[in-house]
Amino acid sequence: MGRILVIKRKKYRFCRNIVVCEYTWKGLGIHMKLLSFRYEGQTLFGPKVKREEAVWDVLAMAQAQQQADFPKTMIEAVSLGMDFVEMVRKLVEETEAGENAAQFKYAFTDVEWLSPIPRTPKNVMCVGKNYAEHAQEMGAEAPPEKVMIFTKAPTAIAGDEQTLPIHSDVTDSLDYEGELAVVISKTGKNIPKQLAYDYVFGYTIGNDITARNVQADHKQFFLGKSLDGTCPMGPYVVTKDEIPNPQNLSVVTKVNDEVRQNGNTSSMMFKIDELIAEISKYVTLEPGDVILTGTPAGVGKGMTPPTFLKQGDTVKVSIEGIGTLVNRFE
Amino acid sequence: MGRILVIKRKKYRFCRNIVVCEYTWKGLGIHMKLLSFRYEGQTLFGPKVKREEAVWDVLAMAQAQQQADFPKTMIEAVSLGMDFVEMVRKLVEETEAGENAAQFKYAFTDVEWLSPIPRTPKNVMCVGKNYAEHAQEMGAEAPPEKVMIFTKAPTAIAGDEQTLPIHSDVTDSLDYEGELAVVISKTGKNIPKQLAYDYVFGYTIGNDITARNVQADHKQFFLGKSLDGTCPMGPYVVTKDEIPNPQNLSVVTKVNDEVRQNGNTSSMMFKIDELIAEISKYVTLEPGDVILTGTPAGVGKGMTPPTFLKQGDTVKVSIEGIGTLVNRFE
Repeated sequence: MGRILVIKRKKYRFCRNIVVCEYTWKGLGIHMKLLSFRYEGQTLFGPKVKREEAVWDVLAMAQAQQQADFPKTMIEAVSLGMDFVEMVRKLVEETEAGENAAQFKYAFTDVEWLSPIPRTPKNVMCVGKNYAEHAQEMGAEAPPEKVMIFTKAPTAIAGDEQTLPIHSDVTDSLDYEGELAVVISKTGKNIPKQLAYDYVFGYTIGNDITARNVQADHKQFFLGKSLDGTCPMGPYVVTKDEIPNPQNLSVVTKVNDEVRQNGNTSSMMFKIDELIAEISKYVTLEPGDVILTGTPAGVGKGMTPPTFLKQGDTVKVSIEGIGTLVNRFE
Repeated sequence: MGRILVIKRKKYRFCRNIVVCEYTWKGLGIHMKLLSFRYEGQTLFGPKVKREEAVWDVLAMAQAQQQADFPKTMIEAVSLGMDFVEMVRKLVEETEAGENAAQFKYAFTDVEWLSPIPRTPKNVMCVGKNYAEHAQEMGAEAPPEKVMIFTKAPTAIAGDEQTLPIHSDVTDSLDYEGELAVVISKTGKNIPKQLAYDYVFGYTIGNDITARNVQADHKQFFLGKSLDGTCPMGPYVVTKDEIPNPQNLSVVTKVNDEVRQNGNTSSMMFKIDELIAEISKYVTLEPGDVILTGTPAGVGKGMTPPTFLKQGDTVKVSIEGIGTLVNRFE
């Protein structure tokens, strides 16, 4: 996956394959960071504009160019995989060549951020205790021998910058878990480990917020993991070509600017390709499905004494090459 | 909820409220058993026709009557609650008064049965160990003190009469669990127990098929509960008015006509209203959500020796007032 670095030097190479087109795209200085957002009451999606703090409204652009086959939702877009990146690249080029480009660009200050996948087709799938030190701080005698998967209801999904409920009526122990999130691009069952990345669209950041008391009381994790707003994701989904090695990314979680988690995806016990292979042995994966890959050590429950989220706290999860997911609790 | 029996006698009472309209509907001999089905490649839904082995295609009927506001999917229909029952009643009356009624009726032999809710908006929510004797046969020291909820991926949903995979590549211990399934009609959070039934659309039958080895190996139940085809539901969703007391229904599961489970919903430890209240303390419920309410004693794992499903087996789950869900394994 390091090949992009190599071709980056070949500036004027004839564009014959996707990899080189990808380079051309990079040549424009447009990195494919995609976001979902609300603007004037509509749920829209599109790429961040170059280095500007703005997003292109690709649906409006496609309509202006009379591209009837352009995907209508982020999940339709994701299901096209890297072809969608190419479609967006062309669309942006054509729009920029016209006179009205500015009307399709909205400043970040004018939009409400949503999770890049605002609604997953099934519950968000989460890996339990996938970092040895985290398993230890949670009191496990040993890390799990087999992948442990639980789910979060899609009604729990929230966006970057969104203020989230502290849920003090049902929990005294709301906790953060910063995690790398993998977005699936196509339907697959029994995916071999070697082909796993063919099924990845890209990556985002997730915070697997957990009501520890509910998680413990109800044994199975679903309820304690599914309160409204406890699955913020974002700010962007970064397409897989932008992340040459997703197994070597720093993951840092801060609460009110105090570093609580400082891990690296290289410490995952079950790597992304193993997770996709193992989950798809049992479950059919679909475009827009999200796998939260587990959290490094440093959660509130693991502190001495345990220290949970309180009203007014701000949690920031930063992952190298993706960005920072910020949420305040009220 | 026994009021329907009372008004049944008042045959020509002026129809002024829903209860009496409901009676009128019954007067037509049309019981509101709704099904989803595939016919000529399309996913459709509608009521069973009186006592015939046939279904009305309500979408085609609504189109013929130029009713543009008629719900387009089963989930849209469910979200209208009892108003949908009334819409269907009128539609059937108008269609029967016309000349071409027969063209909107398809024989069961011509349709493929789907789960009444072919795709739930979030994973199917399931209650673990909700019958004391079942908790015991599963080796639990005591029934859970708090509601235990795990989920099944919506990709596991299947229909009545559908042949299901035995999954011998990943499990040697596929097991049945016959259960009453509750279909939710409207969005709700923190629903008080006393109002829980306002959020119920109706009931169907579910078989929470489980790969016992996967369930045990992976600790959290999701993977072992989410193999393709392991959540058959059907044949009908019966609207709540048809089931005066859902907490007194026999639940019988047969494997190749041998009775394995013979329970009654009266033995649930957490009743339907408590389940809705407890789940919605944490999770926002939505139209089309399904809660599988737990299985009585008699699963294959509880037998001596444990006896799991094998190729060629047929499992039938019958619930009083709803019908029988039949699936063969291949």
